[in-house]
Amino acid sequence: MEQQNSELAGLPRRQFFGTAAAVLGGIGLSGCATTPSSSAKAPGSSGMLSKGDTVLFQGDSITDAGRSREHAQEPNTQPAMGKGYAWMAASALLTGRASDELQIFNRGISGHKVFQLADRWDKDCLDMKPDLLSILIGVNDIWHSRGGNYDGTVEVYERDFHALVERTRTALPDLKIVICEPFVLRCGAINDSWFPEFDHYRAAARRVCDTHKTAWVPFQTMFDEAIKYAPPEHWAGDGVHPSPAGAALMAQAWTSVVNSDQPV
Amino acid sequence: MEQQNSELAGLPRRQFFGTAAAVLGGIGLSGCATTPSSSAKAPGSSGMLSKGDTVLFQGDSITDAGRSREHAQEPNTQPAMGKGYAWMAASALLTGRASDELQIFNRGISGHKVFQLADRWDKDCLDMKPDLLSILIGVNDIWHSRGGNYDGTVEVYERDFHALVERTRTALPDLKIVICEPFVLRCGAINDSWFPEFDHYRAAARRVCDTHKTAWVPFQTMFDEAIKYAPPEHWAGDGVHPSPAGAALMAQAWTSVVNSDQPV
Repeated sequence: MEQQNSELAGLPRRQFFGTAAAVLGGIGLSGCATTPSSSAKAPGSSGMLSKGDTVLFQGDSITDAGRSREHAQEPNTQPAMGKGYAWMAASALLTGRASDELQIFNRGISGHKVFQLADRWDKDCLDMKPDLLSILIGVNDIWHSRGGNYDGTVEVYERDFHALVERTRTALPDLKIVICEPFVLRCGAINDSWFPEFDHYRAAARRVCDTHKTAWVPFQTMFDEAIKYAPPEHWAGDGVHPSPAGAALMAQAWTSVVNSDQPV
Repeated sequence: MEQQNSELAGLPRRQFFGTAAAVLGGIGLSGCATTPSSSAKAPGSSGMLSKGDTVLFQGDSITDAGRSREHAQEPNTQPAMGKGYAWMAASALLTGRASDELQIFNRGISGHKVFQLADRWDKDCLDMKPDLLSILIGVNDIWHSRGGNYDGTVEVYERDFHALVERTRTALPDLKIVICEPFVLRCGAINDSWFPEFDHYRAAARRVCDTHKTAWVPFQTMFDEAIKYAPPEHWAGDGVHPSPAGAALMAQAWTSVVNSDQPV
């Protein structure tokens, strides 16, 4: 078998530098943590994460993405992470930062608005003591209001969002926070009547980011660029819930932000 | 809102070049098809794929990954693609090559060995007339034999695999074929008693690749490197079925091969 093994080892090796090496070298902007951190929670780790960190995704159905409540306590598993961008981002982190022993959880719940995050924030965020928190919330705040099932306004959204982040900062001063830009695509449930009101919600989320100096993932900007490559339906059939391609794009953008040292 | 819109547009733009631009610029080795092909099926498209191509994943449970039979006829959807590397690779293709109008299907079936692919090959491959076919098969050929439920040997595996690819080449001469290296990780169900026999199956798959000049995705080589970054259980709890991290790594390696012009 010597010759076979040599053959097996030789050809793949050439490919390896173009394939897995790129993966293990880090997905996203930053380099992979190819050498172990000198200590747990080393502040010098790349990007926004350090070895041993706990990561928590929070939001609505886009984050939820069919995750299993039964498996919710398990970090890093597909059933617990759902089938959306949170799982794909988690998979990317667990690949590109394989040595970092990250613990990644999802607590998105379909249909939720920012006040509903606040209602369950002790249990579903503060008690979990994450090191990095990602929040994507807002589309239901406008959608349910437009549908007449909710009387919240953009001012309520911004006030509640500010209060939620303030409360989080007070409870967990060292927590790193990522705020994701709410987004829609102009197809499915989304038509021109959503604008400019939806832009006001985006601007409100951005002000929360600026006020509290969080990281920012520009999903709307990203999708506005993406529709130059494929129609809106390619990225989100109903204009709100991402397709596999939309989720993959979100995961890549999210991971790139978290793996970079943002000027915030 | 002018000022807000300007603010929204400005800050994300800087980030965009470090985030979504990298994504839309192509996942994997090759550049994204940023300009439309001059015609459908343009032979000059990057990597192994052209605009409008149909992609088919074939294999066993690793490929199946819980895909919905009910949705099997739908291209590009998560239920139809399952929750494994095939879906993640599809998501990456549909993101990095968003303009290419690819149609991606999964026909992996849990528990299958190479002769079982042959039994359903007309319906589940040839009749579908894919432009690119990816096959990952072999772990059950050895596993079921070791368990006493199957009397196939490595010679049977190689003979059947050769015959399957030969039959495919005859029926679809222009088809591009990717053979994926069977792999295991030394944990869970996998112990030293699997070796060197398992290496003989890998070598057999490689000979099929060489004989028929297919592309090759070196999954075993990739995982042998990956375990330097995190223990085997991080990549596949039972040594056979990939974790989210393992699936993500496979998808990246697979996509890199398909997006490159391989010297085969």
